Amino acid sequence: MGSLKFEHPQENNSAHMTSGPLDPEEFRRQGHMVIDFIADYYKTIEKYPVLSQVQPGYLKKRLPESAPYDPEPIETILQDVQDHIVPGLTHWQSPNHFAYFPAAFSTAAFLGEMLSTGFNVVGFNWMASPAATELETIVMDWLGDMLKLPKSFLFSGNGGGVLQGTTCEAIVCTMAAARDQMLSQIGRENIGKLVVYGSDQTHSALQKASQIVGIHPKNFRAIETTTSTSFALSPEVLKSTICSDIEAGLVPLFLCATVGTTAITAVDPLGPLCEVAKEHDMWVHVDAAYAGSACICPEFQYFVDGVEGADSFSLNAHKWFFTTLDCCCLWVKNSSALVSSLSTNPEFLRNKATDSKQVVDYKDWQIALSRRFRAMKLWLVLRSYGVGNLRNFLRSHVKMAKIFEGLVGMDKRFEIVAPRHFSLVCFRVSPSAISKANPSLSDHDNGKLKAHNYELLNGVKCVVNEVNSKLLEAINGSGLVYMSHAVVGGMYVLRCAIGASLTEEKHVAMAWKVVQEHADAILGTKIIVDQT
Amino acid sequence: MGSLKFEHPQENNSAHMTSGPLDPEEFRRQGHMVIDFIADYYKTIEKYPVLSQVQPGYLKKRLPESAPYDPEPIETILQDVQDHIVPGLTHWQSPNHFAYFPAAFSTAAFLGEMLSTGFNVVGFNWMASPAATELETIVMDWLGDMLKLPKSFLFSGNGGGVLQGTTCEAIVCTMAAARDQMLSQIGRENIGKLVVYGSDQTHSALQKASQIVGIHPKNFRAIETTTSTSFALSPEVLKSTICSDIEAGLVPLFLCATVGTTAITAVDPLGPLCEVAKEHDMWVHVDAAYAGSACICPEFQYFVDGVEGADSFSLNAHKWFFTTLDCCCLWVKNSSALVSSLSTNPEFLRNKATDSKQVVDYKDWQIALSRRFRAMKLWLVLRSYGVGNLRNFLRSHVKMAKIFEGLVGMDKRFEIVAPRHFSLVCFRVSPSAISKANPSLSDHDNGKLKAHNYELLNGVKCVVNEVNSKLLEAINGSGLVYMSHAVVGGMYVLRCAIGASLTEEKHVAMAWKVVQEHADAILGTKIIVDQT
Repeated sequence: MGSLKFEHPQENNSAHMTSGPLDPEEFRRQGHMVIDFIADYYKTIEKYPVLSQVQPGYLKKRLPESAPYDPEPIETILQDVQDHIVPGLTHWQSPNHFAYFPAAFSTAAFLGEMLSTGFNVVGFNWMASPAATELETIVMDWLGDMLKLPKSFLFSGNGGGVLQGTTCEAIVCTMAAARDQMLSQIGRENIGKLVVYGSDQTHSALQKASQIVGIHPKNFRAIETTTSTSFALSPEVLKSTICSDIEAGLVPLFLCATVGTTAITAVDPLGPLCEVAKEHDMWVHVDAAYAGSACICPEFQYFVDGVEGADSFSLNAHKWFFTTLDCCCLWVKNSSALVSSLSTNPEFLRNKATDSKQVVDYKDWQIALSRRFRAMKLWLVLRSYGVGNLRNFLRSHVKMAKIFEGLVGMDKRFEIVAPRHFSLVCFRVSPSAISKANPSLSDHDNGKLKAHNYELLNGVKCVVNEVNSKLLEAINGSGLVYMSHAVVGGMYVLRCAIGASLTEEKHVAMAWKVVQEHADAILGTKIIVDQT
Repeated sequence: MGSLKFEHPQENNSAHMTSGPLDPEEFRRQGHMVIDFIADYYKTIEKYPVLSQVQPGYLKKRLPESAPYDPEPIETILQDVQDHIVPGLTHWQSPNHFAYFPAAFSTAAFLGEMLSTGFNVVGFNWMASPAATELETIVMDWLGDMLKLPKSFLFSGNGGGVLQGTTCEAIVCTMAAARDQMLSQIGRENIGKLVVYGSDQTHSALQKASQIVGIHPKNFRAIETTTSTSFALSPEVLKSTICSDIEAGLVPLFLCATVGTTAITAVDPLGPLCEVAKEHDMWVHVDAAYAGSACICPEFQYFVDGVEGADSFSLNAHKWFFTTLDCCCLWVKNSSALVSSLSTNPEFLRNKATDSKQVVDYKDWQIALSRRFRAMKLWLVLRSYGVGNLRNFLRSHVKMAKIFEGLVGMDKRFEIVAPRHFSLVCFRVSPSAISKANPSLSDHDNGKLKAHNYELLNGVKCVVNEVNSKLLEAINGSGLVYMSHAVVGGMYVLRCAIGASLTEEKHVAMAWKVVQEHADAILGTKIIVDQT
């Protein structure tokens, strides 16, 4: 019965008929093998370079040109995964992965994904698997309650939550809903007048969503932020931008405010922004993709003060809530706006439960029709750890970020470049350290590069930025840790985002040592400045 | 170190700190438990009613009002899955599930999903995990080659493939690309003039995608099909519809042709349709969500004759290609059109590989930024079974459908209502059988219900439809099998879609027996006609 029993190809080239693609005992045997494979991977994950060191096209050279005609045994396939796939992975689950934002893994989420995949139900509407829909409504209320979201976002109020894949999907859905609400008032011919607002720190998902739902590219506003507000969106600047647009005959539609921006985790002031937006009947979405998770801790909840004025709120449980990719939690106050934009009611899905209007049909809350049973993994995370431990996990990451911040602070060559709110530390080699290490630069006879010009933010090349960029490249090239970068206010900054589930204090200490050693090397050498 | 070791809540209400959300040995222990749980589920799946018999709101009554503060052991959680979730599942993996289209499961896909989830890499661009991107380009070429897609759709030609979640996402992306290409020629202010075409048999995903990308709702054309073309879209009618639109000052944009429609697996004539569309520079997308998989068998490849004239082609590997939800394979000829509409290039993702233009960054081929490593499961399916067995699996389903079709044909009370191309059989109790069983109906004194009016397609109620609807309800209410319905040309038809991985001939025979027994009961009784 073994569906994967390998036999050598026969001359007649006929396939070896197996018992079928699902034999429960073969499933069991192979499933156990893969569990062991993955457990062993975690145990040895530190031996791999965190950032994959392969070159473009590496895999094509190692794999056949076409799919095999005959079956191959799982043992061969797993060996190939080890030999050919693992070297091409960037190990997001490594305790030394500090890039982007965490993709914090957990055993519970993995088990939830297994159950969801194992049942493999297609829960487009209630009837197609009532448990999938009902568990989702329940866990979204649980989680909303943990975050202290206003009742108006919960099913137990008049709102409700839905699990989507990613923030971009959540924004596409809410923006389409906002667009259609507005166009029903002002006429569809005015779609070209609708304006979408965010800041220059807002995630690119906002711009992409605008493009997708047909907002005129000229009507996308990435409002400039500055150090004066710690790169948060200023309500006053929003207001004046909106006023200019209205004077130009445009129609303000949608504002995306962010709690914990991608580059440096800036926090937009929700209350004042919502007030401005509400004057113009705009839809306000709050993107708390990364930082929202922290709000299950009472001490972080003030970051979402003012959310009661928003129309929708999302966080990615697959970032910092121990839930595997993908799992974006979206809450809305007015689900009928979503349904009105996203529903289709084909005959083949008609059923009594839907007709009774007693059930939620999540197909009308999202882009896709088919949907996975994502609530299972969120439910397992919430139950396996409990609210108390989930808070502790998050707090331990914040504590480690504080430790890293402290280490940076003790080395006078470095500076912290943005307030640390959560578990991300943004830092760089300071201009003065670079100047000190390379006194010749101060006397450089190229006017563009005099010492006081190191900080020339809009210049062709910025020495300080270049040094920091080289430092990051060296750090990541070591394979020992992986960090990423951002550019804010013209400054190139290194980002150390703590949150991988295996990260402990020793890893953070080691990461800092790696940074220092590479800084030693770079600052001890004459810096080669590309003046082109 | 057990992260889930259960202890009773303590008075001080503090959480029991666990070792963290990922301990490799605890992962191993719990992973093995869940593998056994799922294997046992498959072994006993036939004991559950296929269609869940719970009532709306059932789960809320069984679960607590909020998330637990303290952790709960996996043993407790799995018991709850068994007791509270399983009863609320509609068992798509049951061998007696014949509704909608199959969600054909396989051990290999499950293992691939485990590996993908276990690595939990976020492959938004090449650099974030080169293996994820490169394996995807490779398997998409493998599969495209198996389907005998023209080279122009493959990376080895000038096109390429990408794994998306669902067809609706694939259509959103291609339609946004088409829209922006067109608007760059005619001016963005003309977005309100763009027209999208499909047939009244096209999947609702087309309408939804049109809504999302901002096509004016009045400019969505669901062109009527009739029995004369077996419900395929007529190129002549398409042509005349397009001409009318052009005369009205509108701009034809996008045609979705379908190979294997949702209701009855009708096949639109790709070649002639593409010819019409090309006269007007329209984008043609071919939706082969279900039936596309069959084209790995040479004997079915003629169904996609003419695809060389299309711009994009998609099939859902999660339907009939043994790959778990979700996995939509999309191929495009011109990926730069996708990239042009969907790319954003935020600073935090800048890297040398991208700048070198030597790599694919799939974030620009889809809606979301974050993306799972879906190629892993498709790779495991292709390798674990091989092309030969995959063909055999599909052929066995087609063979079973032929058997079912034969059984229907032998019972004179029934009729086949649409040609069977693949593994779906569409049938109903015939008007004459209903008339014979209930002679009083022929003399019914309500003019609306005279015998010759049974087939009144546009009438308020159609007796024949009602009988068939009641029959389906009785069949599904038995819990023994689950079938679904469609309405085509006014006819209510029952759909028996074969393709669940556990289905064998004995299940098909049993399914037919269930249909017959319920037909006996219904046709033996006076039919109660709701005349409201």
